Amino acid sequence: MDINQFLSDRSRLMKASEIRELLKWITEDVISLGGGMPDPSSFPTKEIIEITRDVLSTKPDRALQYGATGGVAELKEEIVRFMGKEGIKIEGPENIIITVGSQEALDIIGRLFINPGDYIITESPTYLAAIQAFRIYGPKIVGVPMDNDGIRIDVLEDTIKKLSGDGKVKFIYVIPTGQNPTGITMSMERRKALLEIASRYDLLVIEDDPYGYIYFGDGTPPDRLKAMDTEGRVIYLSTFSKIAAPGLRLGWVAASKEIIRWFELAKQSIDLHTSTLNQYIAAELLKRGVIERNIPKIKEIYRTKRDLMLQALGEYMPEGVTWTRPSAGMFIWLSAPEKVDTGEMLSIAIKKYRVAYVPGKSFYPNGERHNDMRLNFTYPTPQQIFEGIRRLALAIKEYLSLVS
Amino acid sequence: MDINQFLSDRSRLMKASEIRELLKWITEDVISLGGGMPDPSSFPTKEIIEITRDVLSTKPDRALQYGATGGVAELKEEIVRFMGKEGIKIEGPENIIITVGSQEALDIIGRLFINPGDYIITESPTYLAAIQAFRIYGPKIVGVPMDNDGIRIDVLEDTIKKLSGDGKVKFIYVIPTGQNPTGITMSMERRKALLEIASRYDLLVIEDDPYGYIYFGDGTPPDRLKAMDTEGRVIYLSTFSKIAAPGLRLGWVAASKEIIRWFELAKQSIDLHTSTLNQYIAAELLKRGVIERNIPKIKEIYRTKRDLMLQALGEYMPEGVTWTRPSAGMFIWLSAPEKVDTGEMLSIAIKKYRVAYVPGKSFYPNGERHNDMRLNFTYPTPQQIFEGIRRLALAIKEYLSLVS
Repeated sequence: MDINQFLSDRSRLMKASEIRELLKWITEDVISLGGGMPDPSSFPTKEIIEITRDVLSTKPDRALQYGATGGVAELKEEIVRFMGKEGIKIEGPENIIITVGSQEALDIIGRLFINPGDYIITESPTYLAAIQAFRIYGPKIVGVPMDNDGIRIDVLEDTIKKLSGDGKVKFIYVIPTGQNPTGITMSMERRKALLEIASRYDLLVIEDDPYGYIYFGDGTPPDRLKAMDTEGRVIYLSTFSKIAAPGLRLGWVAASKEIIRWFELAKQSIDLHTSTLNQYIAAELLKRGVIERNIPKIKEIYRTKRDLMLQALGEYMPEGVTWTRPSAGMFIWLSAPEKVDTGEMLSIAIKKYRVAYVPGKSFYPNGERHNDMRLNFTYPTPQQIFEGIRRLALAIKEYLSLVS
Repeated sequence: MDINQFLSDRSRLMKASEIRELLKWITEDVISLGGGMPDPSSFPTKEIIEITRDVLSTKPDRALQYGATGGVAELKEEIVRFMGKEGIKIEGPENIIITVGSQEALDIIGRLFINPGDYIITESPTYLAAIQAFRIYGPKIVGVPMDNDGIRIDVLEDTIKKLSGDGKVKFIYVIPTGQNPTGITMSMERRKALLEIASRYDLLVIEDDPYGYIYFGDGTPPDRLKAMDTEGRVIYLSTFSKIAAPGLRLGWVAASKEIIRWFELAKQSIDLHTSTLNQYIAAELLKRGVIERNIPKIKEIYRTKRDLMLQALGEYMPEGVTWTRPSAGMFIWLSAPEKVDTGEMLSIAIKKYRVAYVPGKSFYPNGERHNDMRLNFTYPTPQQIFEGIRRLALAIKEYLSLVS
């Protein structure tokens, strides 16, 4: 039987993640700077063993049973407290929903808000999996360029003005702190301006904040958009994947009660609710201070590895190559001279030099640049970082000599 | 700000589950026969504690890290073995994908196969949450009536013939064993006829099988549709919610490799993957024989509770009330005389008699009957079952006297 005749039109918008496809190429001797995984030495393994034993000894009937779609009450209360300590005041647990990682929140956003043909705005480049999640719902995705202070507000306003005559702009999606893929953190000034524009043109703002709690720059990070949101316009997303462990698949959304109720309605038909056991584990990780004690350790690991990668880049890269200096997140964004097509270069890098990265093109909603790449510094070991960058520089030099 | 102006047309198809709304009414002194939860005494709690400790001691880096979208290889292999023992031959792990409960599989089916306006066929009545999951994608849902042997094949064929001129019929969705909400198990003859029709009219068959492994009738249950599927036409869904614990949120799909690849593509943008930790737990529950040893215990609990509810029904119900005698599943389907509107009756039942059930109407895709109700016998205690049915009989008698 031919499955094609049964597929929906929507299915034809689904594309395999190039990152995940890439992983299939990679054998043991390839150093991969292409992933997006946290350092497993930061996982609170011992504490999760203890907590699981305690939770299942004291409340097995609840932790292993079906639960409410919105999430376990204890966890939502702990999240409200946790966010409060970071200066993000959330009214109460009714403003929170627990999701299967942030990815599920991205899918629900598409489901709730995007009609085919609607405009949505993102930073350009932006998170690949957000583009994929939104794309299924048929929007026109418009990217606004960034500089070292984040999204360019002048271009943003021009873009919105231009689009407004033409159709509905639903939301602006941003990753203000340690952006994926660039590692850039949006300045305080830009954050204020962004909210002002959202208010003036009546748009929702999606603030994706996986890295805010592990900001490792000097001083304190700029305020979250959600902390400055006086109009209930910001839908805030975060995750336990970087402050605890991604294998738990736990994320959360903070928004107005009305928006959260819509999220619950959507989630009910997607998967009923998120794993109750994992939610109780996360609630205890917060309650017992495990996450709070873990965060300085994670920051230290990330800062050290970032410094190492920056040092290696400075040492090995040829002239004409530039890169960002992130104070949050997991990635450095490298821009090669314009004649380099990093997508085309990848096979040389992997096959001859045994090093992998993610070509930059697919992070652009409209594919406008081909000479960037995303480098991950959190998963590889220090030795792999140094050796990986050395090999990458050789690959770039060889490619440059071929196209010159 | 007014959230309504941002909502997609799709959002307006979302409806709160009446069952879940109902739960909000219920205080401690109400006996609820309305839920759909397994008996928590059947959860393998002690074993999950041990397994979590072992898994996290031996492979924390994998169990707490991101994983493949399709699922953990060890778990998929164990599922292939587990299904094999039940006579369902699956080629290999590439024919399996792990989902967040069966609910996620239902959503993905909608996403992959339904274009707005497509026809899909279900048993009538059918599983409420399946209707909800499919409805978001805009199909025309056509219910085919059942008798004590399952879906009526004569009506099914007439229905398909009639619809075929009018548009694309994509699939038939059935719960062949211990159907939700009726408790009916489809006969072997009907199963064969169903597959024949699907082949003749070239349709997909969705076989939702949450209860097949805990069939508690006499003898062995009829073969699974998937076990008889020679054309790769059956998409088989099952779950760990009833053989282990629903709080793990683990389900799986078995289908042709090509269909599984489409499921993976869809799932990637929904939530990347299912909790790795929980998948390793389930793999060990199967490998160590915990589930196999648990199954006879679950069957015994369910059979005893069903018998008790049947006994109480026989003892208390007035004339004109009929009910099913399930040999699988978690529910008895009760039909009151036609003048009873079980939706309207619910407030008397809860407020005066302190007993709750789910009114039957919303299980009908086209809402054609109003005098049925779904009764759950797995979650309430034996005392609650007996007392609950006694109270329910009083409510029905009072309602009958009011409308006569």
